[in-house]
Amino acid sequence: MCYPVIPGHEGAGIVESIGEGVTCVKPGEKVIPLCLPQCGECSSCLNPNANSCLKTHLYESQNLMPDKTSRFTCKGKLIHHFLWTSTFSEYTVIPDSAIARIDAAAPLDKVFLFGCGFSTGYGAVINTAKVKPGSTCAIFGLGGVGLSVVIGCKSAGASRIIGIDINKDKFAKAKELGATECISPQDFKKPIQEVLFEMTGHGVDYSFEVIGRVDTMVAALASCHMGYGTCVMIGTPPQGEQISFDPMMLFTGRTWKGCLIGGWKTKDAIPKLVANYMEKKLNPDKLISHTLPFEKINEGFELLWSGKR
Amino acid sequence: MCYPVIPGHEGAGIVESIGEGVTCVKPGEKVIPLCLPQCGECSSCLNPNANSCLKTHLYESQNLMPDKTSRFTCKGKLIHHFLWTSTFSEYTVIPDSAIARIDAAAPLDKVFLFGCGFSTGYGAVINTAKVKPGSTCAIFGLGGVGLSVVIGCKSAGASRIIGIDINKDKFAKAKELGATECISPQDFKKPIQEVLFEMTGHGVDYSFEVIGRVDTMVAALASCHMGYGTCVMIGTPPQGEQISFDPMMLFTGRTWKGCLIGGWKTKDAIPKLVANYMEKKLNPDKLISHTLPFEKINEGFELLWSGKR
Repeated sequence: MCYPVIPGHEGAGIVESIGEGVTCVKPGEKVIPLCLPQCGECSSCLNPNANSCLKTHLYESQNLMPDKTSRFTCKGKLIHHFLWTSTFSEYTVIPDSAIARIDAAAPLDKVFLFGCGFSTGYGAVINTAKVKPGSTCAIFGLGGVGLSVVIGCKSAGASRIIGIDINKDKFAKAKELGATECISPQDFKKPIQEVLFEMTGHGVDYSFEVIGRVDTMVAALASCHMGYGTCVMIGTPPQGEQISFDPMMLFTGRTWKGCLIGGWKTKDAIPKLVANYMEKKLNPDKLISHTLPFEKINEGFELLWSGKR
Repeated sequence: MCYPVIPGHEGAGIVESIGEGVTCVKPGEKVIPLCLPQCGECSSCLNPNANSCLKTHLYESQNLMPDKTSRFTCKGKLIHHFLWTSTFSEYTVIPDSAIARIDAAAPLDKVFLFGCGFSTGYGAVINTAKVKPGSTCAIFGLGGVGLSVVIGCKSAGASRIIGIDINKDKFAKAKELGATECISPQDFKKPIQEVLFEMTGHGVDYSFEVIGRVDTMVAALASCHMGYGTCVMIGTPPQGEQISFDPMMLFTGRTWKGCLIGGWKTKDAIPKLVANYMEKKLNPDKLISHTLPFEKINEGFELLWSGKR
């Protein structure tokens, strides 16, 4: 990250003004910033089965606007953008490929979750893993995204949904949202994949890593059913770290995949997800543990890092 | 492998006699031995999308018959079985889960290829990668299985089929079977994945590793289109070796998978593949470079290892 910076990649707001040539939104409209843009022109955007726009921060620097200027200053000094969203601000400037208009009646303090957390976990189940009814799923990590995976697995009709976390305070909410069992690796002497094999016979149909650690990424792969299980990598990998694993785990028929923002083509899909929310078909409200005013943002971080949220 | 042993996992033959309770074949019928059995009862066999029977050699020792005895002796000494097939023999004994009856008119000296090599490469394209018309494919390794991948890609309607091998003697046959371009990594200073990115823009839609080396497995993954490419591991991984790779390659949306015998449920599918051969819908005859009598089997190995076949 380039400093000084206005961070924040998840949010919702109202358009204050638009630049020349912008046609996708108008002043006064409610919008969600897209931390994964959809330029509509690159080979990923043109592929019906892909969503990782080549203008994302993974391939193109997003610490300035696309024209390589910043729209933020403080006391005359340039402040960097973050993922073209910079939502930890009362006002931000966003390129038109990174904004989606949503229902005018949508409550902004709820639907911001569709900008990243909920869409990421839920979409990983629906779009990427394509979980089938009656299947067995394991979710490594029960934070907000992991809980969104739980919601997705339940809505896909999974019959066993096994939540895994070392923080047992997460278990009650996970069970409320659909987890059928929750376990802590710290309660077992053997590796968690062996525990899951004992619980399920030959491994789970689908596993989801929602932590972002290379050891749990490999454990999640190893927990899949031999020969056909699918493992989805959702947690952001630690920068610069390599994964080491036994290729026999894949060779024998497992599938390992990853996704950004749950595989949704963001500009097309997020307004539809918000519409589903308004029609009460989707409800991630229970993921919201606290609502704080903007000036208490640092207290929010303290809650997050304390594990108490 | 346990010695002494009768190796060989690919073949075709005629049933000489059957054991008590065997109903799937009768004496006189033509058959193909299945180096990946289909027991029909395990959780893989019962899953419609899986084929890696849990009674395969990966999970259960196959150096003896399922009843833990050998049917081979030499001068009174026990000889081990190999993958329940042991086809380097004029007579062998095979459990009923590892044999498939084929068309009585099938030429055994041609259709043996459906027992492993052709089915493995062709199925990896059709069943595992599910290559779509118009796509771009890269095949790492142009041996018999790699050439079967080329045949599969052509039959799936791929528009670019890029063969990769350090042995340029393989290129003519690859092109005859459908490769649109062939390249040798030794002709470039930069890594082969960078060469493929330059040739294709942002990588290939599908890559296939048909060598069995960890470095080419990672190169094949890295050669896929960022965000949605699919890489299929077909070459047998070197025993005990780990793969190290950058998890960002998967996180951003690539898919990495493997398959045994091209993902076919062997006992069900191989007779149908042979039927397709008899109807001239499939023809792997061009994969056969030499036909030698049984007593010259060692000359065959010498040809194989010399790279001249």
